[in-house]
This record gives sequence, C-alpha cells and structure tokens, in this order.
Amino acid sequence: DLIFKLISGLDPHDPALILVCPDWFVEAQLQQLEKSDHHALPLYGVPFVVKDNIDVAGLATTAACPEFAYIAKENAQVVDRLMQAGAILIGKTNLDQFATGLVGTRSPFGAVPNTFDARYISGGSSSGSASMVARGIVPFSLGTDTAGSGRIPAGLNNIVGLKATPGKVPMKGVLPACKTIDVVSIFSLTVADAGTVLSIIEELDDTNTPPRFVHQNAWFRNGEGLPKLGIPANPLLNQELGYQKAFEHSMTEIKQQFSVTPINMTLFDQVAQLLYEGPWVAERFITIEKLYQSNPDAIDPTVKKVIEKALQFDAITTFKKQYELEDLKRQTQAIWREIDVLVVPTTPTCPTLEAVAKDPILRNSELGAYTNFVNLLGLCAIAIPASMSDSGLPFGITLIAPHGYDHALVKLASFLEKDNTLLLGKNLRSKLPQDQALNHPLAARPTMEIAVVG
Amino acid sequence: DLIFKLISGLDPHDPALILVCPDWFVEAQLQQLEKSDHHALPLYGVPFVVKDNIDVAGLATTAACPEFAYIAKENAQVVDRLMQAGAILIGKTNLDQFATGLVGTRSPFGAVPNTFDARYISGGSSSGSASMVARGIVPFSLGTDTAGSGRIPAGLNNIVGLKATPGKVPMKGVLPACKTIDVVSIFSLTVADAGTVLSIIEELDDTNTPPRFVHQNAWFRNGEGLPKLGIPANPLLNQELGYQKAFEHSMTEIKQQFSVTPINMTLFDQVAQLLYEGPWVAERFITIEKLYQSNPDAIDPTVKKVIEKALQFDAITTFKKQYELEDLKRQTQAIWREIDVLVVPTTPTCPTLEAVAKDPILRNSELGAYTNFVNLLGLCAIAIPASMSDSGLPFGITLIAPHGYDHALVKLASFLEKDNTLLLGKNLRSKLPQDQALNHPLAARPTMEIAVVG
Repeated sequence: DLIFKLISGLDPHDPALILVCPDWFVEAQLQQLEKSDHHALPLYGVPFVVKDNIDVAGLATTAACPEFAYIAKENAQVVDRLMQAGAILIGKTNLDQFATGLVGTRSPFGAVPNTFDARYISGGSSSGSASMVARGIVPFSLGTDTAGSGRIPAGLNNIVGLKATPGKVPMKGVLPACKTIDVVSIFSLTVADAGTVLSIIEELDDTNTPPRFVHQNAWFRNGEGLPKLGIPANPLLNQELGYQKAFEHSMTEIKQQFSVTPINMTLFDQVAQLLYEGPWVAERFITIEKLYQSNPDAIDPTVKKVIEKALQFDAITTFKKQYELEDLKRQTQAIWREIDVLVVPTTPTCPTLEAVAKDPILRNSELGAYTNFVNLLGLCAIAIPASMSDSGLPFGITLIAPHGYDHALVKLASFLEKDNTLLLGKNLRSKLPQDQALNHPLAARPTMEIAVVG
Repeated sequence: DLIFKLISGLDPHDPALILVCPDWFVEAQLQQLEKSDHHALPLYGVPFVVKDNIDVAGLATTAACPEFAYIAKENAQVVDRLMQAGAILIGKTNLDQFATGLVGTRSPFGAVPNTFDARYISGGSSSGSASMVARGIVPFSLGTDTAGSGRIPAGLNNIVGLKATPGKVPMKGVLPACKTIDVVSIFSLTVADAGTVLSIIEELDDTNTPPRFVHQNAWFRNGEGLPKLGIPANPLLNQELGYQKAFEHSMTEIKQQFSVTPINMTLFDQVAQLLYEGPWVAERFITIEKLYQSNPDAIDPTVKKVIEKALQFDAITTFKKQYELEDLKRQTQAIWREIDVLVVPTTPTCPTLEAVAKDPILRNSELGAYTNFVNLLGLCAIAIPASMSDSGLPFGITLIAPHGYDHALVKLASFLEKDNTLLLGKNLRSKLPQDQALNHPLAARPTMEIAVVG
C-alpha cells in the first residue's frame, strides 16, 4: 500500500514531526475508507498531517510540550471533516510551543530548519506542517494562525498558506492560543488545493461554534472586474537577503495588471502593537494556567517569558485595549472603502537559527510586521510564493481582504499563481495544469494526486 | 408660545430634572425650527428631555455627579437627529449616578419617587426621563440601558420603554456605563411613539459607530403568522404587591392568542450573574477613573462601592468571563430556535425608598432579574404596561427578541397594547386611536400631538 510505504519512509527524528501515526491508526482509517464510495470522496486517499495543537482521537496532543500532553478523546471537527472526505492522517507536526512564536525554534522536539537553507528558520508556529508540504511529503496540512503562524512558514518555504476569516472554520478540538482570534490554517503547494480543503472544513454548525456571523462573498465588490489592490506605502524589508528587491519586483508585475494604491500602514501597525503589547497574551495564559502553576519549568523559557506577561494586565486595561482595537477597526474601514485587497510581503525578513537563538523575542517580533494585525481585525489572508530572492531563500507575498472574502481571495491568488514560473515548494516538479487557475477553486478538480507524487 | 409655557410650569426642584433648558437655549431651537419646512419634520414642535448622561452642546453633562460635570461641545448624535426631526429639548433628567443602579435613588439631585406612590422607587437608572413621560410633561424622552435602566423605570411607571439591539443606535456623545453593551433607550406613552422615535435615531453611519452588524427584520421568522412566545417556567414575583397575580393574569390573556412555551431561565440567569459579578464593572470604572483618583468622595458611596469592584479583576479573569459569555450565548441559541419572543415581567418587585436605603445593593440586584442578561446577549427588548397590581402600583411586562428584531418587536407590542384598557402613564386620559396598533409603527402617524396634551 502506497500509504504505508510513505509512512515507512518518514524519519521519526525529522524535527518537523512530533508523531508518525502508528500502523493500527492508519489501518483503521483505511478500513473506514474501504466502506465508502471512493468517487464521492473529494480527498480519497490523500495523506495529510496536522499541527500538534489539533486533537486527533486516540493520539496525544502535545502542543510541543510533553509535560502538557493529553490523549484526545475526539477528533477536532476539522480533522473529522477531512477524514470523512477521504483524507488519511499520517502524522502530527512540530510547532513553536503552544503556538507561541513565529520562528519554528521554540520546541523541545527541535528547531525546524528552512527547507531551502538549513541555516535559516522555517518560520512558525506551524513549522512542521509547512515543512512537510514544502518537501512534497504530503500535498496539504493543517496549521493554526493567530499572529501569522499559518502564513509565515508558508512564505519562508515557498508554499501556499491560507488563513480564513476568524469564525469561518470550526475551532472545536483545537487548543487555543488566543481563543478570540485563532483560525485553523491550510498549507498546500497550490492555491486550488488550499481552496478545496477550505471548502471541506469551513462549514460551521450551530452547536459547536460561537455565533459569529461570516459573510461569504464569491468575488469582490465591483462584481466581475479586477479588484483594487493596496500596497504598503513604505515597505521595509531586509535588503541583504534580497527581500526588498523581490517585493519591488512583485509589485512591478502586479502594477502591470491591477490598479494599485499605496497604503499608509500606521493603523495596521498600531493593531499589531496591541496584539504584542496588549492583554491578549492573557488568552495564552489561560491555556497553560494549570501547567504554569504545577510545573513551570516544563515550559520553554522564551515561551514562558512571553506568556507570563499576562500577569501584568488588569481588567480595566483589558477593556481599554479592546476599545482601542474597536476604534482602530473602525478607522481601517476607510482603507477598505478604497481597496479590496491589501498585498504585503509575507515576512520582511528571514533570520538564521543562530540570530534567533541570540535574541529570540526581538527576531520573532520583526517577523510579524505584516501578519500580526490580520486576525484582530477579522480579516482573511492567503500567503503565496512570489519569487526566489538573491540569497536563495524563497520570498512570499500575502493577500489580505475583509472578513468573508475568503473564496474571492483564493480566486485572486489562483490568478496571480498562474503567472508564477517557480517550481512548487522545495523544487518540486509538478506544475499547474494550464486551465487550473481559470476555474473557481470550488469547482476545480483538486491537484492533490499530482502533488503527492511531485 | 406653548413651549415656554410648558417650561415655565416645570418645577426646578422636581427630582426628575437636573436641568431645565434656559430660555436662550430653547429660543435658539425655535429659531432653527422656523427656518424648516414644518410638514417635513416628523417631530415638529414635540418637546422632549434626555437623561443627563447624554451630551447636549452648550449644556453640562453631569451624570448625576456635579463634580464630574463638563460642558458638552457637541450634541450626542441621537439628540442631533431628534432636533433635526423638529423635536425641542426642554431639559436634562436625573439618573442613578453614572447610570449605575436600577433604583433611581443614587443621586445627589434626590431620589425620584414612583409617579403612582411616592413611597416607592421610580426605578432607574433612567429615573427622571421615565417620570417626565409618565406624568405627561413630555410625550417621549431618552434614557440609556445597560442592565435594565431603560426598561425598569418604564415598568414601574406604566409607560413604554424601548431598548434597541446594542449597536443599532449611535452612541456618539453618550457617556459610557459599559461601553460594549450600552444602548440609548426611548420612553413614551404608546408603543407607536417609541417606534417612531427609534426610526429617527437608529440609522448608523460608518464614521461614528463601531462596525457591528445589525440585521433589520420586519417580522418574525414565520413570515406573517403569530410569533411563538416563551415565558419563564417558574417566575418568581413579589406576592404582597400583587405582582405574581398580575403576571399570571397577563399570561392567561396572552395564552388565549398565542402559542406559549415555558422556558427554563437558567442560562439567562447565568448571564445576569456574569454582568453583576464579572469584570464588566471595569468598563464603568474607566468612565470615572480620573474622578476616582482625584476626588473619590464626590462619588455616591453605593455607586463607588459597586464600581470599585473593578479593581479586583485581572486580564485573565476578564477573558475567561468573556469566553463564558460567548459559550452561554451559544447555548441560548437553542432557545431562540424554539421561540421568537420571550415575555417576562419587567421587574419582579418594586421596593420602597426606605427598603432601598436599608440595603441598597441587594434591593437593586433583585430588580434586574429579567433585564440584566439582555444586552450582554445582544438582544432587543420593549417594556410595556400590563396592568395595575392590587397594591396600586403599575405592573409591566417586557418582550425580548434576538438582535435585529427591533421593529418586529414594536409591531408585536402595538398589537398587545391594543387590548390594554389602562390609562396611559400616570392616569393620562389620551387613548390610542383604534386603528393605531394595526399599522406598522413606521408607517403610522405618530400620536405625539395627542400625548402632549394628555
């Protein structure tokens, strides 16, 4: 069986993996599949992995902290839906502990290296899930995204990272980081694949998800025309790595096809500051509260330092900052009246593992400049490959839209992907069929089968 | 001029009033009105008052705390809209200080007595605005409602109190109590008048209000049929005052016309507890923070005792309680799948001024049993007169519906009002024209002119 061959080829010491699914677990899934009508299952036989803060019944959820681990009683709802669609879970992946980090190094299971250059970080927190897709081991995987965890490792490993509008994907069975803004995210080699997976996991049901209303828009406001794009007025990117040049190159290409407005990013920067310096860190504390009290040394020292800031905040400050966020959200509406989609670098830089080890908090915070504000504002985003920088590291861009434009964003990303001549992930040969990007991803045939043999 | 005659008849020592508008202020309004097309103004010449936590340009906003007072630079947006519709502001009314209280006694401007029996409380916090309408001095007034402040004094004074869905009415220029859930409320003698005023003040504009999305539903889910009503399964009301009997009587009448389901109120009770014992009190603290630090003795001792509980709460507890609220909100959705409207007593009791003085916090909290949970859950509500209890105090009921059913609720309340043989307010003779309740209030001719001479 192809699946067992794939699994036996996995290296249990691969830092991207926390758990390779045991044979009995995979066997049970295959038996279940045999009972089904193969043709009715959109992901029949497609292997996938999930970040180890997502519950899978019978397996441990560690959140990259062995002392925290528990055996999950039920599948997370998103896992359930993927299995029902025919996908086969083969492993659980490494992450910055408790999904607190954007680097991929904060884990007792090891730092996940960049798939292009092992001196550099993979990005995080969904480091392992991104690495597994970039290397072509699985065609898609699940991560989570609070401050950028589902986009940054996509950008740094030349793959697609789709993070839906908060509230669009059920969060039942996903360990919270910041419960009010967390979203399950999707990694894949192609935009169409990410769109297919989103369409499978996105349905909410009344009984398990908070009552947040999310519109679903098939396209942007102008009906059928090209969306209006915005780009940062004065983007600051790493020059040494060639990121500044790479972004300018991408923007030059985009300007040939779209009307583009320079955007003053001050409001978004202020929102990003709120997330990092505000009381939302108390949400992270709630998840680890018991462990923090009973066995604080079990927590990664950097993660601990970040999360225990929660103890500084009182209720008064919390409400004040929530008001500040509401006010900033209101102010950003003026921007969204001018543009449909904001195009930003996915990350402004890519530090080495060594640089992160020297100053883990500062290097981490630099990475989130273009991701931090997105979930607090209820926006959706998709990170896509853009080019190879002069340093040989991949450079990615992210498209951001107001809440509910998830599928419009997927469609736009497909359109941009069509012109991209890059190989997929880490030098994978599979190319998109020429007609792929022209169809709506929900209608398109998934490229899963192609990707898995890439 | 009738308006000046009305104003000169006001007693400046009336505890319902904090300020009678000076002649120059009224004159300026009249001059403005003369320039307008009288027939185009739905409230032409109609006098009104507002609670003194609502800004009126050029007048002091005291929030019933003279040491806190400031001269407002701009009108609250709701005041602007009413003036533009032709209404004439003649005064600002007393309240429980900082809108913190449901009794109407917590004010250095005096306790507002019940209009039916001066031994009893008026209810609050919008005590003065309710009293002025009940006595027929003005046909409508504005209050605010956080935990019941716009409903309780309506119920205790035999008038209508309409509290829209939080987010439906612009809050610009209204001093916050709990900013995340406050709503401007409307008092009037008839349901149709309240509906008319709502339709004038309700429009949101993008620039001044947080981006909260509120549906607008013309009728309940079943299209044109009667809505399904729910009533508390085991309502507990004061027997001595005859409230228990009065509620049972109301329910008997309602059951003759509607299908009624008994509702277990546990979830709603839990939400009410959250408001009183949870961190939302920190929102009240933010409003008085500077005064609390510079001149704490200026604050009413009971109000101070309530609000300084804010200092006990940290950020972690705040988020936990916000999660708890989201979870309870989710659970109550099951109830709203069964019913369209919940019918409750407006208050379970009406204490004397003496009883409140003896135990101000406990007596206050008893009053909110059927109002506290409403705004936290994002619901809309209208309090309407039901009957005179055996004690001679008015007894009221409140209709509650999910967010966005404001105008459907007004229509239903009009329908119920039609069968009510009570005089209006404090024994006012004006009766509803027979066809009034049959029309949609938005289309109906306002009864303002009738009410003002009542």
